[in-house]
Amino acid sequence: MTTPILFDCDPGHDDAIALVMAHRSPAIELLGVTTTCGNAEVEKTTANALRVLDFIGARDVPVAAGCHRPLARPLVLGTADGPSGLEGSPYLPPPSRGPIAQHAVDFLAERLLGAPEPLTVVATGPLCNLGLLVLKHPEVLPRIRRLIWMGGVFYRKSEIITPTEFNAFCDPEALRLVLDARLPITMVGLDVTMQVLIEAPHYAELAAIDTPLGRLVHDWLRFYEKLHRNSMGVGGAMHDPLALALAIDPSLVRTRPAHIAVELAGTTTFGATVADFWRERGEDDNAQIAHEVDADRFFKLMFDLLRESPA
Amino acid sequence: MTTPILFDCDPGHDDAIALVMAHRSPAIELLGVTTTCGNAEVEKTTANALRVLDFIGARDVPVAAGCHRPLARPLVLGTADGPSGLEGSPYLPPPSRGPIAQHAVDFLAERLLGAPEPLTVVATGPLCNLGLLVLKHPEVLPRIRRLIWMGGVFYRKSEIITPTEFNAFCDPEALRLVLDARLPITMVGLDVTMQVLIEAPHYAELAAIDTPLGRLVHDWLRFYEKLHRNSMGVGGAMHDPLALALAIDPSLVRTRPAHIAVELAGTTTFGATVADFWRERGEDDNAQIAHEVDADRFFKLMFDLLRESPA
Amino acid sequence: MTTPILFDCDPGHDDAIALVMAHRSPAIELLGVTTTCGNAEVEKTTANALRVLDFIGARDVPVAAGCHRPLARPLVLGTADGPSGLEGSPYLPPPSRGPIAQHAVDFLAERLLGAPEPLTVVATGPLCNLGLLVLKHPEVLPRIRRLIWMGGVFYRKSEIITPTEFNAFCDPEALRLVLDARLPITMVGLDVTMQVLIEAPHYAELAAIDTPLGRLVHDWLRFYEKLHRNSMGVGGAMHDPLALALAIDPSLVRTRPAHIAVELAGTTTFGATVADFWRERGEDDNAQIAHEVDADRFFKLMFDLLRESPA
Amino acid sequence: MTTPILFDCDPGHDDAIALVMAHRSPAIELLGVTTTCGNAEVEKTTANALRVLDFIGARDVPVAAGCHRPLARPLVLGTADGPSGLEGSPYLPPPSRGPIAQHAVDFLAERLLGAPEPLTVVATGPLCNLGLLVLKHPEVLPRIRRLIWMGGVFYRKSEIITPTEFNAFCDPEALRLVLDARLPITMVGLDVTMQVLIEAPHYAELAAIDTPLGRLVHDWLRFYEKLHRNSMGVGGAMHDPLALALAIDPSLVRTRPAHIAVELAGTTTFGATVADFWRERGEDDNAQIAHEVDADRFFKLMFDLLRESPA
Repeated sequence: MTTPILFDCDPGHDDAIALVMAHRSPAIELLGVTTTCGNAEVEKTTANALRVLDFIGARDVPVAAGCHRPLARPLVLGTADGPSGLEGSPYLPPPSRGPIAQHAVDFLAERLLGAPEPLTVVATGPLCNLGLLVLKHPEVLPRIRRLIWMGGVFYRKSEIITPTEFNAFCDPEALRLVLDARLPITMVGLDVTMQVLIEAPHYAELAAIDTPLGRLVHDWLRFYEKLHRNSMGVGGAMHDPLALALAIDPSLVRTRPAHIAVELAGTTTFGATVADFWRERGEDDNAQIAHEVDADRFFKLMFDLLRESPA
Repeated sequence: MTTPILFDCDPGHDDAIALVMAHRSPAIELLGVTTTCGNAEVEKTTANALRVLDFIGARDVPVAAGCHRPLARPLVLGTADGPSGLEGSPYLPPPSRGPIAQHAVDFLAERLLGAPEPLTVVATGPLCNLGLLVLKHPEVLPRIRRLIWMGGVFYRKSEIITPTEFNAFCDPEALRLVLDARLPITMVGLDVTMQVLIEAPHYAELAAIDTPLGRLVHDWLRFYEKLHRNSMGVGGAMHDPLALALAIDPSLVRTRPAHIAVELAGTTTFGATVADFWRERGEDDNAQIAHEVDADRFFKLMFDLLRESPA
Repeated sequence: MTTPILFDCDPGHDDAIALVMAHRSPAIELLGVTTTCGNAEVEKTTANALRVLDFIGARDVPVAAGCHRPLARPLVLGTADGPSGLEGSPYLPPPSRGPIAQHAVDFLAERLLGAPEPLTVVATGPLCNLGLLVLKHPEVLPRIRRLIWMGGVFYRKSEIITPTEFNAFCDPEALRLVLDARLPITMVGLDVTMQVLIEAPHYAELAAIDTPLGRLVHDWLRFYEKLHRNSMGVGGAMHDPLALALAIDPSLVRTRPAHIAVELAGTTTFGATVADFWRERGEDDNAQIAHEVDADRFFKLMFDLLRESPA
Repeated sequence: MTTPILFDCDPGHDDAIALVMAHRSPAIELLGVTTTCGNAEVEKTTANALRVLDFIGARDVPVAAGCHRPLARPLVLGTADGPSGLEGSPYLPPPSRGPIAQHAVDFLAERLLGAPEPLTVVATGPLCNLGLLVLKHPEVLPRIRRLIWMGGVFYRKSEIITPTEFNAFCDPEALRLVLDARLPITMVGLDVTMQVLIEAPHYAELAAIDTPLGRLVHDWLRFYEKLHRNSMGVGGAMHDPLALALAIDPSLVRTRPAHIAVELAGTTTFGATVADFWRERGEDDNAQIAHEVDADRFFKLMFDLLRESPA
């Protein structure tokens, strides 16, 4: 049985891999892609999404461009994916088409309302578009069956300079809106995504995929790993592919419910996602937090999808 | 020559009077009305706008409902207009029609884009809808010729408990968005609106308007003055009619340019609009501040419009 | 009957005049002077206090130097009194003595404890020393009969760029400590001090005081008025002399009780003193706010004290 | 060679053990003890320090009581040591003496000034007293050779509800003062102290110390471990003994320099100590952060000191 999903992203190398996985997985029906600012400006992330879909022959998947800035803060771009948002793929041609005329938030609202059943939304960037949905279309929120979001950090800070994960830091007000709307969110934070790291054996496995896609992903990862190491201190974490993978196989992680407060006021800590695992705040849980991941099974899933012949 | 305007409001007694003025003034072409939460929930302010338009025979003016909550803060309702947002008009029947299917932000974008010339927007509530426009449709912002907003307080705090005016306090993030977008805004703050107060002679003048509208406005003002006195310490300030009047006659006030900072972080002062008249911040001016008003001329304009026979 | 007082100040031209008044008034017994940073660094304000006391022959009044910085913020100096804190008095010689060995906070504690009756404290600078007293010597607080403080702004912002008065802005945490300690404070804010302005007739009156002190004060005021005009937009407000005058004649102002919240979190508004005259916060009043002043009687008192021959 | 130290603490079970170690270690000369609020009110922590010193026959060590509250926030007590601050020692008699008449901050200033060489200060509670020292006695700061502070959390949040360590959370303004004063501070945070946990073998080792002190410490730890588990999620971390141990043997931990920012503005994150290990802020390092600990050697040192016969 396939799960129909709407995919909100800001490609981004790891978003791009997640996009490939979403299109190729027989377990997923990719109803559409919406884009947001984050890893790069929304014009670039939209073009990147279109270029990737072109490359894998998915020209029929609608792409709707979304927010050009966070809801209440100036835009700060991510640095892990380079100026284009997708460094390392110079031979990827410009997109063959533009995004549809609808704004991402209207596309999301229309598709959610029009679907026979509530839908799964996977989001791998700042939550600007989802925040806008809460503001503009509260009536469609019950049509979201599940929201899987790559973002936040809950247990460990490792040595990251800020106690904040980028997607949360970039638009904390949108995150707060989504949480306050009590959407059924699963948060896939750095705690688990920093455990699915690209290492030497993975490159070997990639090198064995002798297809244009295999070579493209290989080149992406070379760039991404280096840029990611510069900004995060460790190599290429498969943040977004892990979030997408949960739409295919939720059992890849263990989750734990908690109330998450989003720090909006701090000077060095705004965007921090502070989990109350012990219910000391007296607030109901508002999220499921991924806290353990089966990295081997995840990588097998990812490489299987990259390896198989396109439909 | 008439000025075509889009009117964004949250009626509200004083919004309602402004609505009547906008419809009746030969100097104004009322292209449409958008509603927001503020004085009451958006469902109520929308119904109130429709009821008032019904009453004055303006069933052809499109009304688009907008934001149900501020962009980044929980909704706090105003208290000056009572629970319905329009206390004191029990005999005003329920609206004969509903709002149009479009969300206010889409209506605004469509009308701004479709107009042959840039348009004037008058806004008399929290700036939620305009903030959403900045987020969702940055491409239409150059189509706003002038934004006249009732809000803020710049010179005097008088004895108001908070240093913040309600429309600014209710959605300070939206106000910041509008200012940062460098829209050509004229701010009609408490400094001037608290100088156009309903007094005994005005009631006499109203009593002389022996029409259903005259009696309705009289009843509204009785309620409004009392509620306003409770929340502001003085009687019925014609906040919103003054803002609307500036679309008819800009010379009613004198303005002064300044850079306005919106306090987003304070505990008791968030929403404060702090003017830098002396350019000490080194920032370019981002608003025109109304600082003197010709109250007599304003009241003459208002009463003339209430008095005249409908077209 | 004389009122024994402890005088905490940061001279400053207007502090200096208040110092002269305190020493000369038969209604006051000046038990000692403590100094703080504020209008200038504490080394300078201490030297200024000593120089002024030298000049008026008050070498027996003990001076204890206090805080070199606010409790929790970096020191920002006032600008109304020039770099030395007392521009315009070049011929005032260096002090003939140093401050006593005790820190201001210890001097205050010792004098308060040692006095037969609770004492009046007049404070005309940032409340660093009083804040330190709350922290270090809570046991002596009941020995303060009355604290008269020049600071805050409660009703009007006039056109001042910040909604904050300097003494409050400089050390808002100390002010919060003093308020939370429920000291019996009378706040003499800009609302009243901006109504006792040095004008042309006052210079004429000063010119008629043909004494070294008369000439010194005249020169001070020439400088002060100009500097004050640059920083406040109007001429020489007698901020500190008015506060001191209330220790002589409390009837010079009318006061009104209120709960004052001190904004500590705002970006452009920290240090704002937000009065709840209507008890909407549900907090007990914690201050008396001066809100009307008899300017003529104040100036008569001030000039009488400057005019009379020293004892 | 012995290291003379001043010990600032808020006993607290783990402070109490550190106190015993400081008195017994031949490597340390305990010049005096100062107390602060934190684990309990300062009256209780002072009494606890005196009771412990009585018990181990150290009646000659001067104890000076310090701050009854943090510099700029209301006092929030720690919960890991119970209402008395030293639950589980009912048979410890009331103190045989009181603290000296001097306030802690004056005692610290006097001893630092009077010592022939700069001194080491070990601090195991909120930094109120040291913050007060920065405010009141900046002239003695160069007399601090080294400040070893138990506090902060830099790498990991584990599952602790707040991203903030208690001593930092309790008085973040004092911590900021100490950091801004560029004191030579070594921070012994939860990253290392949560690695020196009391486990079953330690109880066996304690049980073998058949002395009144051995039994007392055993009883303390039973209570402390349970209370600590309730508040921190894991058993008895030897926070304060580890900090004290570094005055005896700095090689027990490895440290790393960093610039530490203290979050003062956050709603759920104030008191967070955000380390910039990569110098992205462009600020000079202001602290040494302990990041690895030799737990076995630490416990050997601690038990050796508890085991040996008193001098």
